[in-house]
Amino acid sequence: MPSPKLRVAVAGLGRMGARHATHFHNLTPRAELVAASSPEAHELAWAEKNLDGVRTYLDYDDMLDQECAKGLQAVVIASATAVHSEQAIKAIKRGLHVLCEKPLSTGVEKSQAVVDAYRKSLTTFPSQKVICGFSRRFDASYRDAYEKLQTGMIGVPSVFRSQTCDKLDPSGFFVAYAQFSGGIFVDCSIHDIDLALWFFGEDSRVKSVSAIGITAVEPDLRKHNDRDNALGLVEFYGGKIAQLFCSRMMAAGQEDSTEITGTKGKLAINTQPASNLVNIYESSGIRREIAPHYYGRFRDAFIAEANDFTACCLDDTAPPMKLEGAVNAVRIGVALQEALISGKKIEFDEQGNRIDQATKDQVRARL
Amino acid sequence: MPSPKLRVAVAGLGRMGARHATHFHNLTPRAELVAASSPEAHELAWAEKNLDGVRTYLDYDDMLDQECAKGLQAVVIASATAVHSEQAIKAIKRGLHVLCEKPLSTGVEKSQAVVDAYRKSLTTFPSQKVICGFSRRFDASYRDAYEKLQTGMIGVPSVFRSQTCDKLDPSGFFVAYAQFSGGIFVDCSIHDIDLALWFFGEDSRVKSVSAIGITAVEPDLRKHNDRDNALGLVEFYGGKIAQLFCSRMMAAGQEDSTEITGTKGKLAINTQPASNLVNIYESSGIRREIAPHYYGRFRDAFIAEANDFTACCLDDTAPPMKLEGAVNAVRIGVALQEALISGKKIEFDEQGNRIDQATKDQVRARL
Amino acid sequence: MPSPKLRVAVAGLGRMGARHATHFHNLTPRAELVAASSPEAHELAWAEKNLDGVRTYLDYDDMLDQECAKGLQAVVIASATAVHSEQAIKAIKRGLHVLCEKPLSTGVEKSQAVVDAYRKSLTTFPSQKVICGFSRRFDASYRDAYEKLQTGMIGVPSVFRSQTCDKLDPSGFFVAYAQFSGGIFVDCSIHDIDLALWFFGEDSRVKSVSAIGITAVEPDLRKHNDRDNALGLVEFYGGKIAQLFCSRMMAAGQEDSTEITGTKGKLAINTQPASNLVNIYESSGIRREIAPHYYGRFRDAFIAEANDFTACCLDDTAPPMKLEGAVNAVRIGVALQEALISGKKIEFDEQGNRIDQATKDQVRARL
Amino acid sequence: MPSPKLRVAVAGLGRMGARHATHFHNLTPRAELVAASSPEAHELAWAEKNLDGVRTYLDYDDMLDQECAKGLQAVVIASATAVHSEQAIKAIKRGLHVLCEKPLSTGVEKSQAVVDAYRKSLTTFPSQKVICGFSRRFDASYRDAYEKLQTGMIGVPSVFRSQTCDKLDPSGFFVAYAQFSGGIFVDCSIHDIDLALWFFGEDSRVKSVSAIGITAVEPDLRKHNDRDNALGLVEFYGGKIAQLFCSRMMAAGQEDSTEITGTKGKLAINTQPASNLVNIYESSGIRREIAPHYYGRFRDAFIAEANDFTACCLDDTAPPMKLEGAVNAVRIGVALQEALISGKKIEFDEQGNRIDQATKDQVRARL
Repeated sequence: MPSPKLRVAVAGLGRMGARHATHFHNLTPRAELVAASSPEAHELAWAEKNLDGVRTYLDYDDMLDQECAKGLQAVVIASATAVHSEQAIKAIKRGLHVLCEKPLSTGVEKSQAVVDAYRKSLTTFPSQKVICGFSRRFDASYRDAYEKLQTGMIGVPSVFRSQTCDKLDPSGFFVAYAQFSGGIFVDCSIHDIDLALWFFGEDSRVKSVSAIGITAVEPDLRKHNDRDNALGLVEFYGGKIAQLFCSRMMAAGQEDSTEITGTKGKLAINTQPASNLVNIYESSGIRREIAPHYYGRFRDAFIAEANDFTACCLDDTAPPMKLEGAVNAVRIGVALQEALISGKKIEFDEQGNRIDQATKDQVRARL
Repeated sequence: MPSPKLRVAVAGLGRMGARHATHFHNLTPRAELVAASSPEAHELAWAEKNLDGVRTYLDYDDMLDQECAKGLQAVVIASATAVHSEQAIKAIKRGLHVLCEKPLSTGVEKSQAVVDAYRKSLTTFPSQKVICGFSRRFDASYRDAYEKLQTGMIGVPSVFRSQTCDKLDPSGFFVAYAQFSGGIFVDCSIHDIDLALWFFGEDSRVKSVSAIGITAVEPDLRKHNDRDNALGLVEFYGGKIAQLFCSRMMAAGQEDSTEITGTKGKLAINTQPASNLVNIYESSGIRREIAPHYYGRFRDAFIAEANDFTACCLDDTAPPMKLEGAVNAVRIGVALQEALISGKKIEFDEQGNRIDQATKDQVRARL
Repeated sequence: MPSPKLRVAVAGLGRMGARHATHFHNLTPRAELVAASSPEAHELAWAEKNLDGVRTYLDYDDMLDQECAKGLQAVVIASATAVHSEQAIKAIKRGLHVLCEKPLSTGVEKSQAVVDAYRKSLTTFPSQKVICGFSRRFDASYRDAYEKLQTGMIGVPSVFRSQTCDKLDPSGFFVAYAQFSGGIFVDCSIHDIDLALWFFGEDSRVKSVSAIGITAVEPDLRKHNDRDNALGLVEFYGGKIAQLFCSRMMAAGQEDSTEITGTKGKLAINTQPASNLVNIYESSGIRREIAPHYYGRFRDAFIAEANDFTACCLDDTAPPMKLEGAVNAVRIGVALQEALISGKKIEFDEQGNRIDQATKDQVRARL
Repeated sequence: MPSPKLRVAVAGLGRMGARHATHFHNLTPRAELVAASSPEAHELAWAEKNLDGVRTYLDYDDMLDQECAKGLQAVVIASATAVHSEQAIKAIKRGLHVLCEKPLSTGVEKSQAVVDAYRKSLTTFPSQKVICGFSRRFDASYRDAYEKLQTGMIGVPSVFRSQTCDKLDPSGFFVAYAQFSGGIFVDCSIHDIDLALWFFGEDSRVKSVSAIGITAVEPDLRKHNDRDNALGLVEFYGGKIAQLFCSRMMAAGQEDSTEITGTKGKLAINTQPASNLVNIYESSGIRREIAPHYYGRFRDAFIAEANDFTACCLDDTAPPMKLEGAVNAVRIGVALQEALISGKKIEFDEQGNRIDQATKDQVRARL
């Protein structure tokens, strides 16, 4: 008797949604993609052509209604960021497992609402799994580094450096995109922040953030309070520090690299980027190519994500990360973005509450 | 209406057979694994547990009989090398598509028999596809190099260097294995030879081979006329030369690297091996790990092979390589192995016939 | 007739002083090392044994008196940082060329005093050369990167990342050293700051600095208001930003790397550190060693520095860098160190004056 | 009292001679370059301008006559290869120390004559040093590899791979040069052969050589019995094997790399060539440059050679290599070149005598 497969629907069939749908349809043996929704008719047409046997819906709610009746078990939220939290909460309330693309929301409160809904729902559906799709956690190299770190190989992880740098896109895409992205720290560095929380420990509490940035190639980003290159510092309670770099201006391709320095050693991931194992020797020297976009770099991680999510749902095992971490990451990303624009350092107390200058002055006055 | 899938059976469920079966079962969306055969009961038990819905057979012929009646379309031959050619020919005669693990046989005649059967069968089944599974042809890096070469980027490819080097295995495995492997040049270098034929052009004709070797760690290999390290030279008509290195003694892991030097540039594949993108900084320096075995290095290539084979069968497109090349590779591998043991250079005329010393003396005498 | 050689004295024969003396004595063909001073008798004994024909002095002033009478032309200041500026000024007043080890001083005012003395002295000795020994400016790789940048290859240099990270030294040396070093940003990052000024343009004006740090392995550093790992952000007027990392905790060795991202490309220096061209393949993977200390990494740069300084003195050509830059670097380093300890962002107006919070509040109040 | 310096003369002031003269003049503290000879007046003019105080001679014998009277102690032979052995022998007979550029001669007999002269001279001048300048033995990376090998780190060195590949030079230089070079195996691979002898042990005895080659870019080389790309196999008694690659056709620059595989590990030297530590990120990927010519790669080795030769002469310590090795290297190089042209494998008995086919037939007949 064949093992039952996880019945999955995908919400959103844009660039990433179509990829998720394909991964669940073709490359996740234990899952069965049963449905997909998109408000865009041409995206549904694509699905009908490329996803044999998958039912399509123009309306997300409609999909939930009809598919839940047919035994839907899980939803992948890959729609526009603006509706992530709302769609996730709807699915959570029906007891469905949820894999939500990052970020849960570009705002802290809406992100927290997803966590709150999940915590509440767990009392009714104790086996329910809800995770935020930080794809790098599923990347073989990051996982290898994490496992090595867990063995104590580098001692206490203390200094973290990470960057998410997109290839220069002269089309102006990034300007239009900035309206909805939450800003470069929320859009790009959210991954690096999540990695810092993973490597330093998911319970790490942020102490302060600072940031600076420029518009070197896209001055119009300033209209949306954004920058094309930014640097951030993040301080955590407990003697851990991080530096972040995000950019929309890399010439060679997607450059996402990370270093974790511990008291006894260091782990570096992708500090010598290469799209494959080929070196080209020519009169100008030796050259290697690198992946132009994040999907080229992380495709295998997305596939692992689909398979691991499926496994933890089917087997009722612990999800690979805590959902709370995703809110924590948004909190830090949003604060960095604010620091970037205001030029001010933002501080937090040990409970995660912001300490603003007025508060500090009050505290000082009382002493 | 869903597209029909290619109905595939796998013959042999040993180490590689089980992998092929898994790839076709789980990771080849357009294929359906319907059956598998193995003379080993425990391997069938494994299949029953891990390959949902796949029918199992102790006998290959039995499988063909029963499955052909049910619409079998293709067979993957991953059994012991000794039966490759026989099983392949049986499937060919039934008009099945065949993906045969390398080598077709350890002997030239048995290899040629497969080609002959295929050529004959094509008159009856003009869409039939038969390929030999030289996995490196499906590796993303080798493919990228091949495509770059085709653009003329390195001019005329002229000097080829390639090595297939296994991790040192102190268990004695390689001694036992040498009885059936055909020798280190047939077992390991066959891949490098196939790559040379690919990069130099599939119609390349061998002119001479020379070889030397040692038993540095496994003197018992001499009982089977084999060596644990060997070096070979291969000369082709038309001004192209190749050097090969095969070894059973690499400390760090599987080291399979290739360089193609042309008149205008060079392409190097895997000359800086690494299992992933992690670098470890520790008191002894900076370290990276490499894949211990060929499957760690080439897993993705095997999966691509399954998918590409499936696509060319379903779509009736040209197979990714000519079957004749597989015989050519065996011919060169067998000659290198003979040169290794005899210490003699072996020469070929432009028609591929060996020129032995006696012949050369005769020719000379007649002049 | 042989060309005259530059007659040079070295002040200070500690670790770096002895190296400078050796470079000028043995490896600077156009220079003649005539004298050396040190308050340490054992260092003079070393000089007498190793520097044939060099006259030695316990007292710096004594050396200047006697050697100037004999035609001394240049002095290399390699004594304790605390006396750099004083010794440099004395030599400057006598019209001697001066190569002063970095930093001119750990304080801005004393550093500026050297510049002031030099500017004044130039009216009397218009050919006098005074430079601060930022050795990286003489390193072949940094020079190559600088020249490439000058060609416009990477467009406008916009984002700078650099680190100076010392090998972990469990002896407690760094704690004792912190009393005099000026702090980790002044001692280590001064090099990175100088590089930022070089790559961004020597007239770059700092806009703000922020910093965070920890004591991960040497808590006693806090007694000297220092840290063992620190991260800094530096913002320059004109849309240029920099991130800095300094550490006393690297396991593998000295790790000094730099990246300059421009609007069209990026230059990376030493992001794949290696002490030489050897790779070691062993059962744990592939390993390379890196230089344990800065002298291992930069020895050739120090030798180039000696030769280039000599050449500009003898040939009366422009010195390789402006002395003002050295004060600018100290200003930024000192501000970073203050930001590190106070936790406050420090801002500067376009004239280089600090804008403190009170000032900002005043300015705001007046508006 | 200053230590006495070694009084050195250089014979030959062509490209390499001028470099040797400069190294001894400027960068070898314990040596004093006193004289230089060249049959070319313009080369002497160069010396008079650039080598302060060095006496110049149009005639080598004249230099020896006059300089020996003035206390000459050592000669560096950097003249045309054709006169190496003759000039070396003249200097040897006068009891001078000799550093002779490689090869001693392009012929085995003339090379052996130098060794014979030296062996005889030693009875009169027991402290005399005569070495052949295999510069790679003085390269920091090769030395590091050699020392690591000596520790047993890679077990028994068993398989050697090395290449000396020159940058493509479309000027036709290599064709003209082939008249005098002794052929590509004698000119280029002599270094690799010397390294094989060093790493395998200087007493290694060659058992056989085979070679193949092509003219891919310079067909006119065939006029001089030479090739532009060649591959060789060298078998040694005692279970050691080597493969060699020499080329005049590398696009990116000088590519000299070496790997020594032992029973427990491998050492690789320069398998990732780079001229410095800079990586260039641009829209076509990540690029590094490599040294265009051997002097760019080995300048520091030549300087170390000058210093080490000087030290062993002054201190009467063992020379860094045996002179006999240089004859052994020529013997193997000449045999490879012959094998390249004849297409025949050449075998040697354990005493180093060639076993030709006729001999083998005779031996066989007698059995």
